[in-house]
Amino acid sequence: MSDPTSIPFQDQYLDARADCWGCGRNNPNGLYIKSHWEGDEAVAHFTPQPYHTGHKGVLNGGIIATLMDCHCMGLAMAYAHRAEGRAIGSQPLITYVTASLKLDYLKPTPLTDQPVELRARVANIDGRKTAMTCSLFAQGEETARGEVLGIRIVEPPSLA
Amino acid sequence: MSDPTSIPFQDQYLDARADCWGCGRNNPNGLYIKSHWEGDEAVAHFTPQPYHTGHKGVLNGGIIATLMDCHCMGLAMAYAHRAEGRAIGSQPLITYVTASLKLDYLKPTPLTDQPVELRARVANIDGRKTAMTCSLFAQGEETARGEVLGIRIVEPPSLA
Repeated sequence: MSDPTSIPFQDQYLDARADCWGCGRNNPNGLYIKSHWEGDEAVAHFTPQPYHTGHKGVLNGGIIATLMDCHCMGLAMAYAHRAEGRAIGSQPLITYVTASLKLDYLKPTPLTDQPVELRARVANIDGRKTAMTCSLFAQGEETARGEVLGIRIVEPPSLA
Repeated sequence: MSDPTSIPFQDQYLDARADCWGCGRNNPNGLYIKSHWEGDEAVAHFTPQPYHTGHKGVLNGGIIATLMDCHCMGLAMAYAHRAEGRAIGSQPLITYVTASLKLDYLKPTPLTDQPVELRARVANIDGRKTAMTCSLFAQGEETARGEVLGIRIVEPPSLA
């Protein structure tokens, strides 16, 4: 049996939950963000397409926002499952939605054919709210920093 | 001669500045956001693709962030040009970059084949900083609200 920690969070989502443009494996035209644990940090690497540009030569800020949003929602879900000793996708379903996204663009993120790196961790849990911090690194340098708030949603099993 | 206020801001950018994935007319695979003045508000309508999904049936939060980012940078540029009585794209070039993006997702934004509407206005100007507020409406209801800070950048004419 493969080590579940080596399978990206998003590849453990149920098929019915894998449509997201940012991170769903079943989206026909998405970014396919893949996040995994490294200790208590969630880490993802994303290789942008040449058309993911903002200003010339710079990675688009909306793409950066999408990466942080999906990466952090993956972290919120993975964290909740780990805390409860459950597999991602097990019933009853644990899902999160984004309540807020606060992003500081510290400097331009160079757009190259090399992957950027996202590193996020849980900063605080307050009931259904999971507050996270996330940094984006390009060529080892932090270029953007975010605070992302996820809310756990309760769904009837029929929606799973 | 056509009324310049009826031409979307983004269609007045120089060709060398029209690559952006969110709003550049020359991007091969972008969102092609188009913003225009309605009084002191910048308004844009965007019809999402079916694959711009987050949770099933809901517009992706990263797409919303991109719309707000590009719409507000368009507003910052248009506002600066209007204040100086100049045409967008005239020399010396006025350009803005996003310093921060703070977004609250108030409720799920339904993903339909109908356009969503963005309305933004300048809240404050402080030197090179333009602070803006932006709301997203779906079917007339406000579903997301953002605060976006743009910074005017000074570029040598050779970069224009």
